[in-house]
Amino acid sequence: MIDKLIEKIKKTGAPIVVGLDPMLQFVPEHIKKTAFASKGETLEGAAEAVWIYNKEIIDSIYDLIPAVKPQIAMYEQFGVPGLAAFQKTVDYCREKGLIVIGDVKRGDIGSTSSAYASAHLGRVLVGNRMCTAFGEDFATVNPYLGTDGIQPFIDVCKEEKKGIFILVKTSNPSSGEFQDRLIDGKPLYEHVGEQVAAWGEQLMGENGYSYVGAVVGATYPEQGRLLRRVMPKSFILVPGYGAQGATGRDLVHFFDKDGLGAIVNSSRGIIAAYRNEKYAGFGAEGFAEASRQAVLDMIADIQGALHLI
Amino acid sequence: MIDKLIEKIKKTGAPIVVGLDPMLQFVPEHIKKTAFASKGETLEGAAEAVWIYNKEIIDSIYDLIPAVKPQIAMYEQFGVPGLAAFQKTVDYCREKGLIVIGDVKRGDIGSTSSAYASAHLGRVLVGNRMCTAFGEDFATVNPYLGTDGIQPFIDVCKEEKKGIFILVKTSNPSSGEFQDRLIDGKPLYEHVGEQVAAWGEQLMGENGYSYVGAVVGATYPEQGRLLRRVMPKSFILVPGYGAQGATGRDLVHFFDKDGLGAIVNSSRGIIAAYRNEKYAGFGAEGFAEASRQAVLDMIADIQGALHLI
Repeated sequence: MIDKLIEKIKKTGAPIVVGLDPMLQFVPEHIKKTAFASKGETLEGAAEAVWIYNKEIIDSIYDLIPAVKPQIAMYEQFGVPGLAAFQKTVDYCREKGLIVIGDVKRGDIGSTSSAYASAHLGRVLVGNRMCTAFGEDFATVNPYLGTDGIQPFIDVCKEEKKGIFILVKTSNPSSGEFQDRLIDGKPLYEHVGEQVAAWGEQLMGENGYSYVGAVVGATYPEQGRLLRRVMPKSFILVPGYGAQGATGRDLVHFFDKDGLGAIVNSSRGIIAAYRNEKYAGFGAEGFAEASRQAVLDMIADIQGALHLI
Repeated sequence: MIDKLIEKIKKTGAPIVVGLDPMLQFVPEHIKKTAFASKGETLEGAAEAVWIYNKEIIDSIYDLIPAVKPQIAMYEQFGVPGLAAFQKTVDYCREKGLIVIGDVKRGDIGSTSSAYASAHLGRVLVGNRMCTAFGEDFATVNPYLGTDGIQPFIDVCKEEKKGIFILVKTSNPSSGEFQDRLIDGKPLYEHVGEQVAAWGEQLMGENGYSYVGAVVGATYPEQGRLLRRVMPKSFILVPGYGAQGATGRDLVHFFDKDGLGAIVNSSRGIIAAYRNEKYAGFGAEGFAEASRQAVLDMIADIQGALHLI
């Protein structure tokens, strides 16, 4: 799957991923009206609104990008109906040829971690039949529990040719509270990065990159430069572009010289572009076209920055 | 909710929680047969089997214990139907008067963390209506992202009078890879424990304990002794009893002198008791009675150990 991701990045020229994190406040009023008219102001109504919104955005941008990253929390808040909308979104994106990174940040141990890995990347045996649950292509994983939490994911990845991105240095202001603390002279995130590199050796793709990647926030460019060296074979998923403040210039050191090795996420900067003054001309009815323009602008920004390497 | 938990622990004399982690291999054949006959060897069939199994166990033990802890991964592996079974289980346990600790180990930042908190402990606004998604009483949370990940949960807890247990020192063999590393002469888990104590100050119950608790594995009694002192006002949720090797005697130092301050989880040791040689006499048909006997034995073991304090 890492090879397919690289192939699609090369084909689109876009090392970006669009975060499908549909907060209800982003969904245009006309869509909410339609959804609530048919399903009520209920969890089902919210899930329907989210699904209509996602579908229009996907239809408008799928040809420009290699991958999407639905944030499962935004669906889980609407309970079982919300998770059904997550499932529909994953399935629809895969139908459209997009690679789906499930931003689930799961982390547990042993058989529990195996169950999460099966839920998102693998299959599960029911009686004599193998069934697929959510079926994303990649998932994000939390490292706090150590190898016992990661290995079950790697085992499923080996079997299914899928991948993971492990949290190393997150984009939020308080990420340093634990991640930056020095252990033997090096910050915790560097130790985690070294472990990601070691875990990744087990599962190399054909293009020189591992199926085991890392999450490093765009808001920490210096740490990105360091971690790029610590994990030379790991793809880095970079959140924090746009709404969280980082621009293309902050990102160059996350990439390798060939312009590969990283994939930059933008969520609300794309899916809620129509609410941004810059794209206000599209109006709420034109939200999906606004998203398309925002994708084109993001690609231009990052391609421009990559020429600086 | 921490006060309600304490009240129920006193009433039952059982500082224990039963982990409802229904792996399909634990479910007796006669239940699987019934479920697959009506729903097929599908995710729906698996979810139905899990639900029937849970319900019989709950009916058999609910009067003995204060709380249950469903592990959401075991439901999530069966996709949307599995999560519907999780929801039914949560609802049914609450109907029976049990406190429900959602073992979800979520961890994210800002609005995403808020969404998880709403999903599991709070409510979500849809149009003009407040809706409840999963509606557990407590949730487990991962600390790796720092205060940005925890504060949204605390905010929801304040509003809803619910609580969280933050992972501090997990029960698995590799938990030391990061958690035991020394920072300024103290292991990371101790720093996390100090932070748990600080976070908890914001949200104290009436009985001297905070709504912000901690997870510390039974398999690490020495660390439990230390962390009991570091977090004097935090309830400790203790996994690792039974199947993971710890017994009542390992647990005494997790408790305060009054026998409060900790709640010990057992999962497969209870729900799959009928597969244990000790309870084999109950047979697969008597699995729920075997679970009841295993609960009674666990209570006796822990009460016996607490007299050692």
